[in-house]
Amino acid sequence: MTATIKIHEKDLDKTEVYRKLILLTKKRVDLKKILTKKRIEKCIIKTPLLGFSFAASLINDEILKLLQKLADEQMVVEKYQQILNGSIMNVGEKRAVLHHKTRSKKRGFYGKEQKKIAAFTKKIHTGTIKGATDKKFETVVQIGIGGSDLGPRALCLALEKSCQHDALLKARFIANVDPDDAHQVLNSIDFEKTLFIVVSKSGTTQETLTNLNIIRKKFLEIGYKKENLKKHFIAVTGKGSPLDNPQKYLASFYIDDCIGGRYSSTSAVGGAILSLAFGAPVFEKLLKGAFVLDENANKRNIMENMSLMAALIGVWERSFLGLPSKAIIPYSEALSRFPAHLQQLDCESNGKSVNINFKKINYQTGPMIFGEPGTNGQHSFFQKLHQGSDVIPIQFIGFKHAQINKDKIYMRSTSQKKLISNLVAQIAAFALGKYDENENKNFSGNRPSSLIFADKLTPYTLGALLAFYENIVMFQSFIWNINAFDQEGVQLGKILTKKILATEHCDDEILNSLMAIFQ
Amino acid sequence: MTATIKIHEKDLDKTEVYRKLILLTKKRVDLKKILTKKRIEKCIIKTPLLGFSFAASLINDEILKLLQKLADEQMVVEKYQQILNGSIMNVGEKRAVLHHKTRSKKRGFYGKEQKKIAAFTKKIHTGTIKGATDKKFETVVQIGIGGSDLGPRALCLALEKSCQHDALLKARFIANVDPDDAHQVLNSIDFEKTLFIVVSKSGTTQETLTNLNIIRKKFLEIGYKKENLKKHFIAVTGKGSPLDNPQKYLASFYIDDCIGGRYSSTSAVGGAILSLAFGAPVFEKLLKGAFVLDENANKRNIMENMSLMAALIGVWERSFLGLPSKAIIPYSEALSRFPAHLQQLDCESNGKSVNINFKKINYQTGPMIFGEPGTNGQHSFFQKLHQGSDVIPIQFIGFKHAQINKDKIYMRSTSQKKLISNLVAQIAAFALGKYDENENKNFSGNRPSSLIFADKLTPYTLGALLAFYENIVMFQSFIWNINAFDQEGVQLGKILTKKILATEHCDDEILNSLMAIFQ
Repeated sequence: MTATIKIHEKDLDKTEVYRKLILLTKKRVDLKKILTKKRIEKCIIKTPLLGFSFAASLINDEILKLLQKLADEQMVVEKYQQILNGSIMNVGEKRAVLHHKTRSKKRGFYGKEQKKIAAFTKKIHTGTIKGATDKKFETVVQIGIGGSDLGPRALCLALEKSCQHDALLKARFIANVDPDDAHQVLNSIDFEKTLFIVVSKSGTTQETLTNLNIIRKKFLEIGYKKENLKKHFIAVTGKGSPLDNPQKYLASFYIDDCIGGRYSSTSAVGGAILSLAFGAPVFEKLLKGAFVLDENANKRNIMENMSLMAALIGVWERSFLGLPSKAIIPYSEALSRFPAHLQQLDCESNGKSVNINFKKINYQTGPMIFGEPGTNGQHSFFQKLHQGSDVIPIQFIGFKHAQINKDKIYMRSTSQKKLISNLVAQIAAFALGKYDENENKNFSGNRPSSLIFADKLTPYTLGALLAFYENIVMFQSFIWNINAFDQEGVQLGKILTKKILATEHCDDEILNSLMAIFQ
Repeated sequence: MTATIKIHEKDLDKTEVYRKLILLTKKRVDLKKILTKKRIEKCIIKTPLLGFSFAASLINDEILKLLQKLADEQMVVEKYQQILNGSIMNVGEKRAVLHHKTRSKKRGFYGKEQKKIAAFTKKIHTGTIKGATDKKFETVVQIGIGGSDLGPRALCLALEKSCQHDALLKARFIANVDPDDAHQVLNSIDFEKTLFIVVSKSGTTQETLTNLNIIRKKFLEIGYKKENLKKHFIAVTGKGSPLDNPQKYLASFYIDDCIGGRYSSTSAVGGAILSLAFGAPVFEKLLKGAFVLDENANKRNIMENMSLMAALIGVWERSFLGLPSKAIIPYSEALSRFPAHLQQLDCESNGKSVNINFKKINYQTGPMIFGEPGTNGQHSFFQKLHQGSDVIPIQFIGFKHAQINKDKIYMRSTSQKKLISNLVAQIAAFALGKYDENENKNFSGNRPSSLIFADKLTPYTLGALLAFYENIVMFQSFIWNINAFDQEGVQLGKILTKKILATEHCDDEILNSLMAIFQ
């Protein structure tokens, strides 16, 4: 790890191009006039795995030129290099930011853990390691919350279908401290054939320890001896944490402070469960896919750098056009929980109001991210996106092919053709609108969207998609001059919860009055 | 059905109190100063099943007085009476709005269908009706999208645990035209023991018919005779629709044009699957719970009318304070998909920009609704809610008891106690904040929230919760003077999709260029 180096530091509103961009917001970009075949063919960036079409975004050449200048002035590619070099880029917590290293060529510590996981996984799959009653494992349950849950869960769901023949263990998750969550999962599994992964970097996460306790007690209730429990538990945790205990865990796979929870899907946090569920080679494909996008992120020309272009358009929409939310709509049921992961990734990273020197900033940062799969969303909140009183930019994700091969034709087209046609129709409808003299049936149009596209949702493209969004968030934080890698905003709630739970009678009148509502 | 009657009609910005409320936005309500034990005890509305605490909302007595006047001036309770009386309140489509009737004392047509469903359900549960190979049904799969999917799915999930001993058939859902959705569900069921419910009012929904076709073909592939297929299908549809066909369906349960999809959970759309999954008595309890809140909505005094108070606070936040989004956070894993239903309910109803006379309006309407269960959200996007550059009001939902009875104590408290303590701590943290000289650790506070609370999530409270939100949306539409019951915004996308799919070569250059991205 190299020492801290001085980071170029300039708030967005102190950059040279800021005023120029503000002036440009007064000139309306009208998609109804400028969206043409030529523009669609021109406004596209392709990488080996993913492509990005931004033809239906509210930008033009003049804006793009300034956005390139903004990227240059904020030295975003240089800062990315500093991240790759291991500089202390998480200034709040004085840590390096190393999630890219998990999928790079020289993976060091992370590579070592990946090898440990692959070797362990093989033993589970071949039945060399079995449960306490000598049964082969069939289910793996991850106990973790936040970054230890949302990313790995979304990825498992995404691969459940495409990797069906690779599916070796069924993956389940318990996150919430709500006892009904654990209860629901535990009621549906066979304890004898279940391996639990306890995931917490610090080994002190309240929800995770509480659920762990429920599961351990359940094992004892059904007759397991205490000394046999370890045959059903592995830990993914920081070295030396309370969970790093060979007496209680069959194995420990390590994570460290240089990867925040929401960036940990490509570390052991995602690696253990994905390898157990689908085999280590599938996880390795995902890492290789992510690396392709990490490589692409090195390009200085925004017309060649997918995640940087998407990041800049996002900043334009948020800090200049003042649009507070962003919808991410995958036209893929397999990605149904991917927006929930991105909501965490983006909002926990860039939902900040101070710069990297801890000074208050005066511009809008990370938007509210939300999303559901298409076409489902079309029959739900799309009404508001088309005719509501706000403009909400949309990022569509679409694939040429479905995960299954045997698609059926009905009314002259396959399901997949219908799916893509719906997606394309939405882009056009939002951008172009349609005049109707009845205002209730009028579509004003000029509502922006962009499109991420790939051939098929595979471990490779899934990894690429994950890295694409991680890199968008990173580039945006550089432009906003904020630290995307700490999360001080989650602390106060934890402190007050502890205050309530610490003693029989908490001495805080307001907390007590609120608790009394439930009595 | 009575004839159209003249509806009192006034845009929000034409009301007498509008200017006064605008003036009040200049006086800052500071929760840090006013949130006291007394206020928490005072700002509460209780109904037999649900309670509503609005102590942590950005209102005071002066604002409440004007909000009461606003409700009176917009005649919201009178308009609700008109709905109950069967007046043509869906002015866009010239229809009555009758979802309340499904759970009222005189249910008419809807009651008849409920009785048909109950009788049919009994025959399925007792095995009087079996599949084509004489096997008892164990699984029921609903094929439907939007309103035929999100509400019923969220409700089934919510009751899966509390009604475990009542659980008679396992409920599954197929919605998306993405072939991977159907494939995933169909791969995990035993066709011999599965009953399918096809749900589409018009009988022409593209996604639903496509999935129906996949399933019918699958039955034929595995050797079923065409004439035997009807033994595995029932329809929930409009009388006389293409799906209303005794040759192809074992039974048809009817819905009509007076209940929009998103309001149809208490009609046969939700009734069939909930009754099949948990028994008709469980569905009846849900209806009874909903009726309690419908009754409460008759009260003119906003201090006694839960959904009206919540509606007014929502309008205050949206149209006066200018807050564009709203988070709904149930501290209950069983309600994990309830926010997705509410997102549809609210955004498809009030995501409009024209009044009931189809004239453009000049104020903000329905907010963007989103949400995930707590405590999970705390480890995800709550960073942004606490310290982000926007203020996003939060509506918490909490229960005194978990659905399961056997909760465990760990570190001196049960899981449920931890869950509630977290919820309460969040309310306090958002409202009160906490000063820190390090701006990165500073919590500015004064971020509003409210709380819906109940004893336990049961069919009764679930029904109440559903009606509570339906009535909020209704009252808000009256205040905004918009029609919450049509959805013209979904049409253009459908038209363009058809254009793409209609012929081999679509003649629209832009649509073709966008489709070419996937070639």
